[in-house]
Amino acid sequence: MSKELHTYYWPQLSTETEQILSGDEAKHAIKVMRLQVGDDLRVIDGKGLEAHASAIGITKKELHFEVSSFTNAAGPRPGFHLAIAPTKQMDRLEWCLEKCTEIGLARITPIVCQNSERRNLRTDRLERIAIAAMKQSGSSYLPQVDEPISINDFLNSYDQGAPLMIAHCRDEEKAHLDKTFEAICVMIGPEGDFTQKEIDDAISLGAKAVHLGPKRLRTETAGVVACTLMNLR
Amino acid sequence: MSKELHTYYWPQLSTETEQILSGDEAKHAIKVMRLQVGDDLRVIDGKGLEAHASAIGITKKELHFEVSSFTNAAGPRPGFHLAIAPTKQMDRLEWCLEKCTEIGLARITPIVCQNSERRNLRTDRLERIAIAAMKQSGSSYLPQVDEPISINDFLNSYDQGAPLMIAHCRDEEKAHLDKTFEAICVMIGPEGDFTQKEIDDAISLGAKAVHLGPKRLRTETAGVVACTLMNLR
Repeated sequence: MSKELHTYYWPQLSTETEQILSGDEAKHAIKVMRLQVGDDLRVIDGKGLEAHASAIGITKKELHFEVSSFTNAAGPRPGFHLAIAPTKQMDRLEWCLEKCTEIGLARITPIVCQNSERRNLRTDRLERIAIAAMKQSGSSYLPQVDEPISINDFLNSYDQGAPLMIAHCRDEEKAHLDKTFEAICVMIGPEGDFTQKEIDDAISLGAKAVHLGPKRLRTETAGVVACTLMNLR
Repeated sequence: MSKELHTYYWPQLSTETEQILSGDEAKHAIKVMRLQVGDDLRVIDGKGLEAHASAIGITKKELHFEVSSFTNAAGPRPGFHLAIAPTKQMDRLEWCLEKCTEIGLARITPIVCQNSERRNLRTDRLERIAIAAMKQSGSSYLPQVDEPISINDFLNSYDQGAPLMIAHCRDEEKAHLDKTFEAICVMIGPEGDFTQKEIDDAISLGAKAVHLGPKRLRTETAGVVACTLMNLR
């Protein structure tokens, strides 16, 4: 196996041959990875565009690169949207996001529910985790990280045409989560589960109640399990 | 919802009516949870037996309890055996074990491969994580945690009658991991993948090559994805 190329995330990546990387990713390339003129690199825009390039000029804060080829993203564009209650311990949600980004995630929306113990979080931190997981896993797609939103606002603004699933633990009739649709949103509740009213509200808006097997899963585990089932079944 | 019972893991649990909990779990019940005579508790043996009980006597180091009922374990006995290369950062393997225990895990064997950066680990620590995840998830089954073993010894001692799968990243013909068998072992390699010789050895012993979708997954992610697919497909 040849030595693996280092990947840089550059949302401004265009289809021009000569381009300039600046900001944090350039600093990382220059100061940490110590890229030299002539070194190869991989640049991705997080939306599926991927460039194989060489460094042709390096200043203190900028890396000039020349693209030798643009390639298609490996793997299909993820279609899975996770609407998940933030966990009390932030690292658990961060793990969930990292794993889902590896497996295949289009978008994450932190939904604040009545039983949520945490109501705010740093989406800039979540986005950095998603970027690292995207680069590490060789993906070219960066999931969209939404600001936290109340479950009411989430449900009211949700496009009622798109399939929506709510995974809850109450003892009611539920379907096994199933890859019926290519693009889908699954709602995962907080540690104390959704309230009956939250479930009823979602269902009255067209959501389908689903379960994730017979075991009681932690919030972040349920997120990863739903993502796996939607991507790999 | 009624207040949830606290669960204590007691491998010596029998079907007698009056029993005694001692050791660390008793200390936890008495010193941390401050259980009082008359309080209810749940006691599990990690092998599927589950007792609902009341505390009838508390000393400094022992908790005497009376069983009101024995119940069957919730959910089926897990059949999935994960043979996984230890990750360089131990917390990643620990996370994998926690999540697999929640989802459904019968046994974990750390296999030391040629590309493994870590060759030893503390199985007592892993066992504590499995116990906590079992209790937290309401399961009554504790996965067996094996001592690390070289991949050669693992393959040589593996019962060739039982279905064995090897998930690797090389560009060869592979089947999609599939819940064909009730009890199954899946091998997950280290960060640098299995070597060609390791794959060939496994296949010559009857293992089937499988993949876990089009994305490159970290070792610990692959473990959780395999566990999900084997339990919930």
